[in-house]
Amino acid sequence: MKKTSQAKPHLLTRSLSPENQETPIHFLRSQLTPDRYFFRRSHFPYPDLSTRNFHLLLNGHVYKQTLFSYQDLINLPSKTLLVTLECSGNNRANFHPKVYGEQWTGGAISQGVWKGVPLHLLLSLTGIKSSAQEVVFEGHDHGRRLDHNAEVAYARSLPLHKALHPDTLVAYEYNGQSIPLKHGFPLRLIVPHWYAMTSVKWLKKITVINHAFQGPFQTEDYNYYPYPEGDLGKVPVTTINVNSLIQQPLDLSIHPVGSHRIEGIAWTGRGLIERVEVSTDGGNTWHPTHLNIDPHHPYACASWSYTWDARKKGEFVLLSRATDSTGSKQPYTAFWNRKGYGYNAIDRVRVKIE
Amino acid sequence: MKKTSQAKPHLLTRSLSPENQETPIHFLRSQLTPDRYFFRRSHFPYPDLSTRNFHLLLNGHVYKQTLFSYQDLINLPSKTLLVTLECSGNNRANFHPKVYGEQWTGGAISQGVWKGVPLHLLLSLTGIKSSAQEVVFEGHDHGRRLDHNAEVAYARSLPLHKALHPDTLVAYEYNGQSIPLKHGFPLRLIVPHWYAMTSVKWLKKITVINHAFQGPFQTEDYNYYPYPEGDLGKVPVTTINVNSLIQQPLDLSIHPVGSHRIEGIAWTGRGLIERVEVSTDGGNTWHPTHLNIDPHHPYACASWSYTWDARKKGEFVLLSRATDSTGSKQPYTAFWNRKGYGYNAIDRVRVKIE
Repeated sequence: MKKTSQAKPHLLTRSLSPENQETPIHFLRSQLTPDRYFFRRSHFPYPDLSTRNFHLLLNGHVYKQTLFSYQDLINLPSKTLLVTLECSGNNRANFHPKVYGEQWTGGAISQGVWKGVPLHLLLSLTGIKSSAQEVVFEGHDHGRRLDHNAEVAYARSLPLHKALHPDTLVAYEYNGQSIPLKHGFPLRLIVPHWYAMTSVKWLKKITVINHAFQGPFQTEDYNYYPYPEGDLGKVPVTTINVNSLIQQPLDLSIHPVGSHRIEGIAWTGRGLIERVEVSTDGGNTWHPTHLNIDPHHPYACASWSYTWDARKKGEFVLLSRATDSTGSKQPYTAFWNRKGYGYNAIDRVRVKIE
Repeated sequence: MKKTSQAKPHLLTRSLSPENQETPIHFLRSQLTPDRYFFRRSHFPYPDLSTRNFHLLLNGHVYKQTLFSYQDLINLPSKTLLVTLECSGNNRANFHPKVYGEQWTGGAISQGVWKGVPLHLLLSLTGIKSSAQEVVFEGHDHGRRLDHNAEVAYARSLPLHKALHPDTLVAYEYNGQSIPLKHGFPLRLIVPHWYAMTSVKWLKKITVINHAFQGPFQTEDYNYYPYPEGDLGKVPVTTINVNSLIQQPLDLSIHPVGSHRIEGIAWTGRGLIERVEVSTDGGNTWHPTHLNIDPHHPYACASWSYTWDARKKGEFVLLSRATDSTGSKQPYTAFWNRKGYGYNAIDRVRVKIE
């Protein structure tokens, strides 16, 4: 007898060349996003790498330029962290007026355990010259951009204080396995609390520089441009904005009169999530939720839930609003910017009780 | 050396219990939707069936009630048809004002080759009494509805003329294989040109009746309700509205100056697709497209393409509009109805040339 297989969620395809697919975030409850459900965000075709003969170069304004073999890195002291990675374009599809680019809905976010060498250990081995100002991370992925004639590699920089933060890792494991091919194998920079464009995949080279990095992924993309044209008010995208997501119920779904569990996640790039509130009347009144936070995992999502006693038939607007320990609270309307980064408006789900 | 695997599209998850997932229609070019990409639209949990001991009952206002075994059906003369199946809720997400229910975008449509026994052959074996008015098709899938206290089976009826149409099939094969478990195994009614709620899956029983069928999937769901409340103007959903889809480029995507191929599909439930036009200026001017129609497959989608010479930078609205051989043409705005069926507005894609 043939067995009917279980229903499983799938990655949500945004584009294939290069590959961009979302995590089916509304349908996942695990703290650890499995490889197959981890959102894929690529700028270029995948590089084809192996750990055999793999080396990471650390050069620039250091005392002792060093070529670390994959095995060198494995042999150094390691750190293991549970980290939420969110693409800065997550929820771009929700901006009004509409902005161009990958139309991510809520699923450009994933979470798992990364293991690697703290970057400051590598920098302590090479030494940093007093002229050092930033650290540039270059990936093996490269290709053409619409706005450049020549090939460019994907590269991003960090200010020195963030590069030296004890939790900035050169990672070689995800969820206890070598890093998946599509997520940076064999080495990925992991920068907790910053949007994920900074966690450079397929890490090839780390260069300490004595000026502000001028690569196109630093100075053109991944900046907030507040106006439809021009550079006025341009600000780099860095830390993750305080945010929350209603996973269930789904937007525009229909439910019977009765008790319903409203549940979701919340996260921030500054401090910890302190409070998540829910409204079932479009924001007139707010209710505290039951919040699950693990202080041992300061870079992980909090999960939350609220039991809603839906006694009346009709249409309802459910909202979730997170506040973090720095006092930042989600706004009703996200800060509009031309390239659509950092969306963090209060999440909104419309339901009908029938 | 590890190999980087190719990027593949995935079903787009709408809900898991019951399972509802869309075809990644923008990323498929084949005339035959493979099983794994066929949209899944379920009202209830999947029934668990086998062809061993499987029987189809044909009863009601017939002269000779008959229990057909699976093997009986295989042994009867068969017909093989290439058929587009579209869910009547396809593109529900595009209605304004918003309507509740599964938020299908453009992917509740799939196409493939169905093989089966023409229903009129079965009815000729049983005979039809002169009192006959409709034919009811009941599936093995059943469960509770929000608006009913008792369990109901999924069931739909057809008027006699459509039931007797030579291309209405009791199918047992899809794309040369037995029907996939999630798509009606072992038997599915296939009703070309009608929205797919009529192509009843997991077919269990066919009953000829002498009145209008009153099941909830006939009289409550799958009707056009033109007003937010009440039954005024209520009309049953039947044939597929003339429609088209721009597969590439994608909405809100960014492209360089130069030549771009705009391509997609078009289909109708009345006659054949006669013309597809494209506009690259939001509807001010229209251009004929290169249209691929195979007259041997009158129930299949047409494919079309147009080469756009994008010489200027800026924002553009691309539109596609199909006209069928009955003269029906896609409207600028779809007919709004409370449950969100039959959406067929001109398709619209916004692109930025940079």
